[in-house]
Amino acid sequence: MSLLDVSSFAAGQWIEPGAGARNIASAITGAPLAQAGNDALDVQGMLDYARTVGGPSLRKLTFHDRARMLKALAGHLNQHKQALYDLSFDTGATQADHMIDIDGGIGTMFVFASKGRREMPDAHVYLDGDVEQLSRNGTFLGQHICTPLQGVAVHINAFNFPVWGMLEKLAPTLLAGVPAIVKPATATCYVTELAVRLMLESGILPEGALQLVSGGLGDMLDHLGMQDVVSFTGSADTALKLRANPVILENSVRFVAEQDSLNASILGPDAQPGTPEFDLFVKEVCREMTTKAGQKCTAIRRIIAPEAQVEAVIDALSARLAKTQIGDPRLEGTRMGALVSSGQKRDVLEKAAIIGQEATRVYGDPDGFEVVGVDAEKGAFVPPMLFHCADPDTAQRVHDTEAFGPVSTIMGYRELGHAITLANRGEGSLVASVITHDTEVAREVALGAGAYHGRLYFNNRDSMKESTGHGSPLPHMVHGGPGRAGGGEELGGVRGVKHYMQRTAIQGSPDILSAIGEQWVPGGTEIAAKVHPFTRKFGDLQLGETLHSAARQITLEDIETFAHFTGDTFYAHMDDEAAARNPFFPGRVAHGYLLISFAAGLFVQPDEGPVLANTGLDNLRFMKPVSAGDSIKVRLTVKKKTPRNEEYGEVRWHVTLTNQDDEIAAEYDLLTMNAF
Amino acid sequence: MSLLDVSSFAAGQWIEPGAGARNIASAITGAPLAQAGNDALDVQGMLDYARTVGGPSLRKLTFHDRARMLKALAGHLNQHKQALYDLSFDTGATQADHMIDIDGGIGTMFVFASKGRREMPDAHVYLDGDVEQLSRNGTFLGQHICTPLQGVAVHINAFNFPVWGMLEKLAPTLLAGVPAIVKPATATCYVTELAVRLMLESGILPEGALQLVSGGLGDMLDHLGMQDVVSFTGSADTALKLRANPVILENSVRFVAEQDSLNASILGPDAQPGTPEFDLFVKEVCREMTTKAGQKCTAIRRIIAPEAQVEAVIDALSARLAKTQIGDPRLEGTRMGALVSSGQKRDVLEKAAIIGQEATRVYGDPDGFEVVGVDAEKGAFVPPMLFHCADPDTAQRVHDTEAFGPVSTIMGYRELGHAITLANRGEGSLVASVITHDTEVAREVALGAGAYHGRLYFNNRDSMKESTGHGSPLPHMVHGGPGRAGGGEELGGVRGVKHYMQRTAIQGSPDILSAIGEQWVPGGTEIAAKVHPFTRKFGDLQLGETLHSAARQITLEDIETFAHFTGDTFYAHMDDEAAARNPFFPGRVAHGYLLISFAAGLFVQPDEGPVLANTGLDNLRFMKPVSAGDSIKVRLTVKKKTPRNEEYGEVRWHVTLTNQDDEIAAEYDLLTMNAF
Repeated sequence: MSLLDVSSFAAGQWIEPGAGARNIASAITGAPLAQAGNDALDVQGMLDYARTVGGPSLRKLTFHDRARMLKALAGHLNQHKQALYDLSFDTGATQADHMIDIDGGIGTMFVFASKGRREMPDAHVYLDGDVEQLSRNGTFLGQHICTPLQGVAVHINAFNFPVWGMLEKLAPTLLAGVPAIVKPATATCYVTELAVRLMLESGILPEGALQLVSGGLGDMLDHLGMQDVVSFTGSADTALKLRANPVILENSVRFVAEQDSLNASILGPDAQPGTPEFDLFVKEVCREMTTKAGQKCTAIRRIIAPEAQVEAVIDALSARLAKTQIGDPRLEGTRMGALVSSGQKRDVLEKAAIIGQEATRVYGDPDGFEVVGVDAEKGAFVPPMLFHCADPDTAQRVHDTEAFGPVSTIMGYRELGHAITLANRGEGSLVASVITHDTEVAREVALGAGAYHGRLYFNNRDSMKESTGHGSPLPHMVHGGPGRAGGGEELGGVRGVKHYMQRTAIQGSPDILSAIGEQWVPGGTEIAAKVHPFTRKFGDLQLGETLHSAARQITLEDIETFAHFTGDTFYAHMDDEAAARNPFFPGRVAHGYLLISFAAGLFVQPDEGPVLANTGLDNLRFMKPVSAGDSIKVRLTVKKKTPRNEEYGEVRWHVTLTNQDDEIAAEYDLLTMNAF
Repeated sequence: MSLLDVSSFAAGQWIEPGAGARNIASAITGAPLAQAGNDALDVQGMLDYARTVGGPSLRKLTFHDRARMLKALAGHLNQHKQALYDLSFDTGATQADHMIDIDGGIGTMFVFASKGRREMPDAHVYLDGDVEQLSRNGTFLGQHICTPLQGVAVHINAFNFPVWGMLEKLAPTLLAGVPAIVKPATATCYVTELAVRLMLESGILPEGALQLVSGGLGDMLDHLGMQDVVSFTGSADTALKLRANPVILENSVRFVAEQDSLNASILGPDAQPGTPEFDLFVKEVCREMTTKAGQKCTAIRRIIAPEAQVEAVIDALSARLAKTQIGDPRLEGTRMGALVSSGQKRDVLEKAAIIGQEATRVYGDPDGFEVVGVDAEKGAFVPPMLFHCADPDTAQRVHDTEAFGPVSTIMGYRELGHAITLANRGEGSLVASVITHDTEVAREVALGAGAYHGRLYFNNRDSMKESTGHGSPLPHMVHGGPGRAGGGEELGGVRGVKHYMQRTAIQGSPDILSAIGEQWVPGGTEIAAKVHPFTRKFGDLQLGETLHSAARQITLEDIETFAHFTGDTFYAHMDDEAAARNPFFPGRVAHGYLLISFAAGLFVQPDEGPVLANTGLDNLRFMKPVSAGDSIKVRLTVKKKTPRNEEYGEVRWHVTLTNQDDEIAAEYDLLTMNAF
């Protein structure tokens, strides 16, 4: 069988592996499978191409444009995922593992596509937080914006998730408007190469948006500048080497690291044998140990159980592990495949031996276990191995040594504070989990351990049917952790997109802020509406377009009528003396709901037209009470426009209700859906 | 005159300077003024004290407790600021400079005190963003929280703002709940020492919350761990040395750097001589050059003007600079004092000479200028110096060499894109400003230069009366910038507090999230109200306490009545056929305002009681239309409680309106003010 050539994609060209290419073996058979290497790669040319071709094209698009692009890319990959499955078995992964890697990666891209449309504007600038009132009269204001970095994102990925690992970095990068150079780990780069090829062949991406390095990066990092980002997933040793690069330090190049860590799972003190939580705990630990043969940066490495339950957990877990069929990942019955390579197998056994200095192996014998359907000697197979550490307080290596395979150590705790101390002994992790039905236990762990972990996963009988698993980073939630986990942060919805943008504080007049943010800022120039704005289509409405309504006097009879009609006979509206005793009111006042209902009566245009519906209302604040005899009038201004589909978009109107003295009685944002 | 002893405060003890103390000279007279040094300091003891005494005490407090503490501290400093003024003249600073340093620092602390009360909860956990729907049925949800780091913040400050520089880092640190060790630059550490002494003597701070190192830090950074933070302000060289510390790199210790940068100010193409913007530009540049004798990390180092206006700017600026009296900062007429030291003077002149290789000095002669009221030879005086660079495209040193004094270089631009290119040649700055009345110019600069600058300051005739100045970092706005500016971020309101907290993704059931976040999450267990919750005082109400109202049928007559009473005769409420043509409605439907008004009628308790007022409403969304014949009912649940003063607090209620089929018709948060 001839070897697969794993190419690079540089400056618009596919470049086949050169003379110095390195062979990659199948994880299952140990036979040579592919070759990768790139002695001819022009790294400066790749960076220039991304910066001068890819970046400008991406930045011309709006966030919504780029979100649609992500959706199309994810859809394209989804259509072709069988090819990715087929190729992935040789990495040692089972079909269930492929679902995590390939479907998980595609799903992550879909979520970013969706969040880009729902949570970001159809514009070039992302507004970060509210307007800040920097002046008494409001002529000088502040606002934070995010704009795309003008450099390139270099993604250095780990071997364990050749598809998800690439897509979880790529989706937020492209959504931000930044081109990427992807460098997968060589051991599984043939899968990544296919995924990149599919995306490039789809024609969906602008030129220069995505390049690929199969093999080594050369001295690419020495050419990075202050507009570039390095996002790394892998071992702490490699991360340290890269982040200490003088060019990265000198140019303040953003460096995001996500390192393997000693993740813990705590069995709550309430979760005794016989409870749903105990069974759930055993199930989650077993799954985390065996999925991807334990080659997950989020896998449970330390099992922290009440001292009294340690034996019961060992028994239950061992029984469950014993049912795990190990072997050819192509076989349907196989629950655990091989490690990625024989080198990885050596490393896992070495690390397990180190853990063995402080803990006793209570399950799994690497010299005696069954492998189904394939020659155990040739593939990189190991059994799940469970260690028991009897003295976790004096132990050190069980808290700092990661065997990146199906290896975990159980240790007992005396009381919850002790469990928290042990969990934090990992000195920073991606995730810790707690299986408990006691909300006070959850709160104590969150307060005591939150600062040490990037994610805290709680599960119990209430949530277990819908829970997503200790080890699954979700695109909605931050992935990364402090200390040993690298101190980086990825994903987390829009947070993850911001890692590829620069946050800039903007100060200026309301008109300046309106122009920059593509959102009308109160105090900005009003555009007098020539016709009623409700008669104008979505596309015709201009930001700042304003309607001033006529005034309406509020009578005591109005208040009485409204009270008896709605049933809202709160004393502040009905009883002058009682209302005057209230610190907020001068006496009897109109209902807040009366005011906003009358306001609608003042600004509404009753005929059929582009305004389809009032869909909601935000940030309503009643500022000054309105008494009988006062009159109100309304100012209605187009604040923001967001397309929602092919037929209509959301218009956010800024509404101000003022009284006869021009004092603000109420202020809010009104949402309508308007036809194009 | 005997020397001032500048002490350190370590582990609860004041420690006087030791034998190896270094003399500090007056900037005005050059005479020895003070001595600082600390050969006896036990840095490990200081770190332990902060971690084991200060941290736990601070973390017991809520954000509101700590905000009140900041307010008291700021008030105390404000009472004693005359002593700080008196001491500060010897740093070379004028009374106007003191206002920036001392009043500015105290003001920053007041703003954080206020934001802590208004924008953070009276709780131990800060909720970062909304709940994420991770499951179809809502039994498993996500939420991000921030909790205080459990280590210590080491603040390494620059000499130029001995008070503001300390307080702008200290306020967010303490608000986060993290103890600080402050290390001021030695040249002006006697002012910082007095400010620290005032705060410690006030008795407001818990033990261990604040320590001070006067003199060198020793090997303190080698003892830091993953829960610690280093926040540095100063030169790029020092920052690079510190951030490359192996312990900091290995332990992923957070390192925030704010470095001096080559900040630019652009005169807009519209701002020709004769416009208010031209005059404003000259005024701002002159102020930035001379305030603190140009020793500001945000000062304007590069003046970028249309080529046609360069001469006019030089003339106007020179005329204005000529009116700047230089001399004894204690004299009322003095507009510019001395540099901080003779060493600093040497450095500024050296850097000016480097700039002089690419630019011509057009104003200011260091060998011939008038110094009023003091011996020019003894103090560290220099004149303002303006350089003109005729070829800024080929020049390099004017874009990378910072003379940290009253030195600036003017350069011409051809069109706006060229101005942006020149501004970005600084390779990252804290701030760039643009003086323009053209909003399109502002937008073009924001898109083209935003990614290179931490702050963009726009000013013109509309905002100039209330604007705060190019060089003033405000507590509300992010301070810091990419690249040469260090890549760090400080301030920016709550953003600045989060730099001292860990963000953790939390996943679990609604009840788990409610307990951790101290905010009821929809889907969480309801506590059935025994009496109407409006009859219960703020302190008695429990999160999750829920009222279910009776149902009310909506009749066609209700809709008719409401329409004619309010004037809201929108066709969707009035005309069955027209409404049915609308994509959102099955036919004639009730007004949204009718629904929320009826809802109030259903849940209100009309009698005088603890509920004082309905102050607002948030996130109202109409989910399903209600037709005549349908009925609605209300569920009202206590979601969050926030004390507002000594007498009452805000209660946020989650309100759900459902129809007869238990489908959600509308959902919103209702705000009331409730008596204690």
